[in-house]
Amino acid sequence: MTRAARVAAGVGLAAVAVLAADGRAARPRDAGTTVSAPGPRDPVEEASARLIGAALVSRRAYQDLADLCDRIGNRLAGSEALDRAVAWSMERMRAGGLEGVRAEEVKVPVWIRGEERATLLHPLERPLPMLGLGGSVGTPPGGIEADVVVARDFAHLESLGEAVRGRIVLFDVPFTDYGETVAYRGRGASAAARLGAVAVLIRSVTPTSLSTPHTGALGYAGDAPRIPAAALTVEDAASLHRLADRGIVPRVRLEMGARTAPDGTSANVVGEVRGREHPGEVVVLGCHLDSWDVGQGAQDDGAGCVTVLEAARLIGALPQRPRRTVRVVFYTNEENGLRGARAYAEQHRDELPRHVAAVEADTGSGAPLGFRVHVPGGGDGGAESPLAGEVMDRLRGVGVLLEPLSAAHLRLAHGGADIGPLVTAGVPGFGLDQDMSGYWPIHHTAADTFDKVDPKLLARNVAAVAVLAYWLAEIPESLPRPPPGGAAP
Amino acid sequence: MTRAARVAAGVGLAAVAVLAADGRAARPRDAGTTVSAPGPRDPVEEASARLIGAALVSRRAYQDLADLCDRIGNRLAGSEALDRAVAWSMERMRAGGLEGVRAEEVKVPVWIRGEERATLLHPLERPLPMLGLGGSVGTPPGGIEADVVVARDFAHLESLGEAVRGRIVLFDVPFTDYGETVAYRGRGASAAARLGAVAVLIRSVTPTSLSTPHTGALGYAGDAPRIPAAALTVEDAASLHRLADRGIVPRVRLEMGARTAPDGTSANVVGEVRGREHPGEVVVLGCHLDSWDVGQGAQDDGAGCVTVLEAARLIGALPQRPRRTVRVVFYTNEENGLRGARAYAEQHRDELPRHVAAVEADTGSGAPLGFRVHVPGGGDGGAESPLAGEVMDRLRGVGVLLEPLSAAHLRLAHGGADIGPLVTAGVPGFGLDQDMSGYWPIHHTAADTFDKVDPKLLARNVAAVAVLAYWLAEIPESLPRPPPGGAAP
Repeated sequence: MTRAARVAAGVGLAAVAVLAADGRAARPRDAGTTVSAPGPRDPVEEASARLIGAALVSRRAYQDLADLCDRIGNRLAGSEALDRAVAWSMERMRAGGLEGVRAEEVKVPVWIRGEERATLLHPLERPLPMLGLGGSVGTPPGGIEADVVVARDFAHLESLGEAVRGRIVLFDVPFTDYGETVAYRGRGASAAARLGAVAVLIRSVTPTSLSTPHTGALGYAGDAPRIPAAALTVEDAASLHRLADRGIVPRVRLEMGARTAPDGTSANVVGEVRGREHPGEVVVLGCHLDSWDVGQGAQDDGAGCVTVLEAARLIGALPQRPRRTVRVVFYTNEENGLRGARAYAEQHRDELPRHVAAVEADTGSGAPLGFRVHVPGGGDGGAESPLAGEVMDRLRGVGVLLEPLSAAHLRLAHGGADIGPLVTAGVPGFGLDQDMSGYWPIHHTAADTFDKVDPKLLARNVAAVAVLAYWLAEIPESLPRPPPGGAAP
Repeated sequence: MTRAARVAAGVGLAAVAVLAADGRAARPRDAGTTVSAPGPRDPVEEASARLIGAALVSRRAYQDLADLCDRIGNRLAGSEALDRAVAWSMERMRAGGLEGVRAEEVKVPVWIRGEERATLLHPLERPLPMLGLGGSVGTPPGGIEADVVVARDFAHLESLGEAVRGRIVLFDVPFTDYGETVAYRGRGASAAARLGAVAVLIRSVTPTSLSTPHTGALGYAGDAPRIPAAALTVEDAASLHRLADRGIVPRVRLEMGARTAPDGTSANVVGEVRGREHPGEVVVLGCHLDSWDVGQGAQDDGAGCVTVLEAARLIGALPQRPRRTVRVVFYTNEENGLRGARAYAEQHRDELPRHVAAVEADTGSGAPLGFRVHVPGGGDGGAESPLAGEVMDRLRGVGVLLEPLSAAHLRLAHGGADIGPLVTAGVPGFGLDQDMSGYWPIHHTAADTFDKVDPKLLARNVAAVAVLAYWLAEIPESLPRPPPGGAAP
């Protein structure tokens, strides 16, 4: 079996010894890390090279993103802007030659920020730039005025005990990594409310700031009063903390008109490149079309959407389509409900056994590094799944194709929020892994704008997704998945 | 003459040959760049080492800055906050042992920002974060609503001709360096008004942005209507520019309540370490106490003020004071009028012939690099002054002392705004030169806050200013200056 044939079959180079033991000769050019001699390429390698070249010279994804950002802008679930974005997406998919373009209706929560403002009253009066957290309740008219007590973390909050009652709690927690720090955005309000706090403020979840507040969803626990919650800038959280450390108790007035309206109607937008042999077998390419209600949603997740769309368009423009269908899904309501992801899994339940893989792009537009591989069947990213070893071995075939993009790092990890329900249903998941150093400073802020997207990096992301998607749709035998009913994640 | 004696006398090492020709022996350890042998230090070197050590271990400047930023905050001319800052400064100077602490009254312009807002109306409606430019007139109630025409620079504006009439001009000029780019903030409004523009917007003057508008002063020319002017974020300037490039004319409503009230009363704050031999001879250490009306004025110019104050305190705490007086001057109204600088020069006119030098710190709190030397008498930084060569030669004496701080780079250049009138009157000027890479992104913004100040770099700045000030106040013969009446800059 030649190297080319093994790439096409999805059999890794490390399987060479096994194959040789099976009686088939391993040719010298198959050996380890030596440079391969030139030779005729197989069709999968040819297609991969063609996709990479086409992706790197195309400006279509970049131009689409500019159009989405500048003409539609941010698009929270329930907003008219998201409705316009749904229509725009269908138009773009159709113009790009995708088939079966449709909007699949989804009921979504409607959270409305309303007017909001925080004001420092003591020791001086000045505005505090802020953003209410998504899902927060509002304050009574006129706002909530209280002294501020600063908590360094959850344990410190607990130690404050009665000092919290009637106060506004400020969590001034330095950014370590997103997963660790975002816990205060998610759970801070209820933790403070259990101790009698009247409102909660968090330091924005970011490593750096230019007076830039970051929003994002909170979750209210069932056992705690629902109190208003907002993010201050890193700068102001630090200033209030310094004052408190010097024995000066800051006093703040928080005014938030936030409210949750009855559910609205939105849609997942779907379009396909139908497979030539098995059109009923599907590789999902996912992103989310909604964004928070600030900035342009350029990197969260406009970039992901134009990336998967362009990857599908390029696959559709190949001389020969892959065996299976590549289906683009622009999910709705990722940010504050995940209703789009759940609705897709529910509405397509009967199809899911023939979903051979799901790929998600939702971490910005930094340089592609590889993919997080989420094997169904248990553990973090599927690490406890009995299939993990086999899947990772098979993936060496696509690693060879991704290597020219420096995007061949494949690791077991959570694939992504929108494809989560699919992985739970047994579908192997893939999350595009990217350099996120430029992402956290603009994440969920007014600064998530088009100008920060590098067109050449965006093109490399398109290439990486296209290569993986094509390979998943073309390999003769799709990746292994757990038996029906055995895929609890 | 020993090296130590030459340092004390302010005679540079390069003067060795001349001195030798004068009949005095140059000892081997004086030669060029060789490492000096250890030996007894002279009193100036001893004092310099003591100042450096004291500055690097002191946290006083850092603590003062936190107090100014957190308890008083920003402080525009005419504001109550600036009045509080004047009182705070006098208290800090007195507590630090300075003598003759006083507030010297200055009439200042009073510009009031008022409520302000910019809204994109077409192709979508959304707020545009902005800051009106200092000194701008306001809009009529209800604002100005007009189509936007984008100009890439002044020449492009001129080429647009009649297309400007009745429009809002947006100058979307990329940041090159401050001096070049700030011209659009300063002169853009009048240039656009001459062609019939109804308002002007500029891209904020900064290399980077997180949706962070930058304010700053404009100047209206006498021959043009006064139209409202504001800065947009880099992000929004880029977005509007992209729309215009695609043939979509952005429409904007600009509402500004800005107005200029009658002059108010403020003060320069002055305090001294009186000289032991020539108390009437003065080395000024200047900064400006006022700031723009956003952020905390931490680096512009709170850092400069706590730097010169701490430098003076450390000099005052030496076992022996320098021969001449070191006078700290916290100027008022640098940002939008320079009235403090002019008032000081006017109120102290009779003293100026005995002002032997003026040092200014007003470029943030980055690593100290050296000093801009402004020799009175003509040309950029005095480059055309017949005294330039002699002054630079004399300064080698202090270069030796600054070298351990990596702050020995001395170059002819403009010294600074507040000491400008003193240089014009014949006083040699010195501007603390600093690494400004972290300064422009926060300059004149809500992000000019204390958290961005590094205490160790601040301490190094204190040390550099203290060493230069001490040397200027101690050298037996002060630096040469032009003859009276011959100091036109």
